[in-house]
Amino acid sequence: MNEGLEGVVAASTRLSRVDGEAGQLTLAGYAVEDLAPHASFEEMAFLFLHGRLPGGRERDDFVREMAGRRELPKAAVEVLREAAAAQAPPMDALRMGASVLGLGRREEPFDQALTAIAAFPAIVGAYWRFRNGETPAPVRSDLSHAAHYLQQITGLAPNPERARALETYLNTVCDHGLNASTFAARVIISTRSDMISAITGAVGALKGPLHGGAPGPALEMVFEIATPERAEAVIREKLDRGERLMGFGHRVYRVRDPRADVLAHAAERFYTSGGDRRLYDLARSVEATALRLLRERKPERRLDTNVEFYTALLLHGIGLPTDLFTPTFAAGRVLGWAAHCLEQLREGRLIRPQSKYVGPVGLQYGGLQFAV
Amino acid sequence: MNEGLEGVVAASTRLSRVDGEAGQLTLAGYAVEDLAPHASFEEMAFLFLHGRLPGGRERDDFVREMAGRRELPKAAVEVLREAAAAQAPPMDALRMGASVLGLGRREEPFDQALTAIAAFPAIVGAYWRFRNGETPAPVRSDLSHAAHYLQQITGLAPNPERARALETYLNTVCDHGLNASTFAARVIISTRSDMISAITGAVGALKGPLHGGAPGPALEMVFEIATPERAEAVIREKLDRGERLMGFGHRVYRVRDPRADVLAHAAERFYTSGGDRRLYDLARSVEATALRLLRERKPERRLDTNVEFYTALLLHGIGLPTDLFTPTFAAGRVLGWAAHCLEQLREGRLIRPQSKYVGPVGLQYGGLQFAV
Repeated sequence: MNEGLEGVVAASTRLSRVDGEAGQLTLAGYAVEDLAPHASFEEMAFLFLHGRLPGGRERDDFVREMAGRRELPKAAVEVLREAAAAQAPPMDALRMGASVLGLGRREEPFDQALTAIAAFPAIVGAYWRFRNGETPAPVRSDLSHAAHYLQQITGLAPNPERARALETYLNTVCDHGLNASTFAARVIISTRSDMISAITGAVGALKGPLHGGAPGPALEMVFEIATPERAEAVIREKLDRGERLMGFGHRVYRVRDPRADVLAHAAERFYTSGGDRRLYDLARSVEATALRLLRERKPERRLDTNVEFYTALLLHGIGLPTDLFTPTFAAGRVLGWAAHCLEQLREGRLIRPQSKYVGPVGLQYGGLQFAV
Repeated sequence: MNEGLEGVVAASTRLSRVDGEAGQLTLAGYAVEDLAPHASFEEMAFLFLHGRLPGGRERDDFVREMAGRRELPKAAVEVLREAAAAQAPPMDALRMGASVLGLGRREEPFDQALTAIAAFPAIVGAYWRFRNGETPAPVRSDLSHAAHYLQQITGLAPNPERARALETYLNTVCDHGLNASTFAARVIISTRSDMISAITGAVGALKGPLHGGAPGPALEMVFEIATPERAEAVIREKLDRGERLMGFGHRVYRVRDPRADVLAHAAERFYTSGGDRRLYDLARSVEATALRLLRERKPERRLDTNVEFYTALLLHGIGLPTDLFTPTFAAGRVLGWAAHCLEQLREGRLIRPQSKYVGPVGLQYGGLQFAV
């Protein structure tokens, strides 16, 4: 029995390859560090859904197609208003909003996929603006997907550096093998259910702290340290108390998570372009100190910087509040969910493992019926 | 590689044991035929959530506790109104309604489980009544769970025979090993997500025709046959055309599905009590003919009556429309989902299998960047 299914191969995929030993992530044939900082999110989406990058005309058509699917059904807006009023956690709101997508349309799975990917920014934005006493920002079809995400949250079109930084993030996290949320989506759609059901389930899985991660706390440590010279003392103290350092270590990668590098470079570029590198430099210093002390304390383990550390730094720099870190992760990962679902529909079969019964047998209902 | 995970053990459970060779189903220690026709659904729920049947006082308290959780959040009612107005399929509506449960409450998983189980009747009922141009029936705390389910749909408290027939059905289907929806729920909650997320995902999986099944078509064949003497000719014709007979065969059971027997008996009792056994007798006759012809045609295969055949007969007799068969299935199975989730939270770990990458590697983005 292998209750975590660790090492069990449950799907073949052309979408991503995670090589934890070498620290390499391949996205539909491309190294993450080659693709993520340069491609547009729309190109990534085309690549994941069609299996190749688009040509110029195709790209333009696809961009238009996605931009035309940004508007939420009225019911989604209403449910997000209620969710915000009830102070529902952001990922609960995203689950509610996602569950309503496509209402009133009967679409094929491919089109449902486009609808879901295109509409996530409006879900996150509407919820967030309601929570802050604002009304949703009107959707705009003249912005790139990444720029539209930020516009839906802030109400304003971002400058190109900000949009590019977010785009690199979305691209970087859009897929990662058969992680728990992607697997949940594949299990759901393996019954020949629909894309919205599968994506809604995946949102629910991503919500879990063992999966969606904790990019907030990684940044909190950086803020707590505040200046590079305090790094060593604060981290030593944490390690003495037996605390886990957030932002370090990953279940799969035995070496540095390649996504951490991509995001570190994106963060450097973004903070430099903004003219204030202090937080970036502090984070680098905290990272270096943390790695040194971790190796000193646990020389037998390879605890390297993971994707959360630079996710936090980058998204914070872009201006996103910590509460929106996991929904923003979802806005990238929804592409992977959708592409995996299409692959599962094309090639997969019903996913139905077994359970082992370890309870009693032979009890009799009548015997207890009149007890007490 | 085993993409369906068939035969792979992914969880140990004290909830149900499916013995496909012997045709036995054990529910938390009890044979389904002993427990399902006699226990109340509330007793089943207590058994599944606490691991034992309740004593008298416990039972009364639990009944009251569940009855107090029947009301939907306002947002759920609104989303169901919209779903009905948009003619959304019933399982889509159930997914939307489920995703909003617990809004405004911060509850522990056990209490979330109770909320979900208790509220499913109101979700199904509100959607159905909106779809028929009616308003939701006010929830009532003086009815049993099964009676309340019917009252939420029809607006009227059912007679005891009808409520008992439904109760037997809900009990019979409340759990069945690690089926795809239950597995989806366990995958989702294995990330330490919440009960509502897991149950919403499970609804999505149950929606799929490979899982939630097709109890409607099984009954359609009975209606098409119309009188016992036509059974042989109609079924022969279907088999000649290579059609699959709905209601026969199951992935797991090599012999008669024990749930079919429980539901056949419940149907017999119910139709007899109503004074008109004609449809019941016709169905029995169709079943006998179908089994005889299947054995004649495919002697090497054991194609026995499955749970869908008598589900259709029983639910139709109770007065439920075909559109509500799968949501009614969900209203029973939600108990299993919830109990499995609690078990997973107590004992399980993150469920994260691997994928095998079969796509290209080494592509270069720059090369295509300027292609047309």
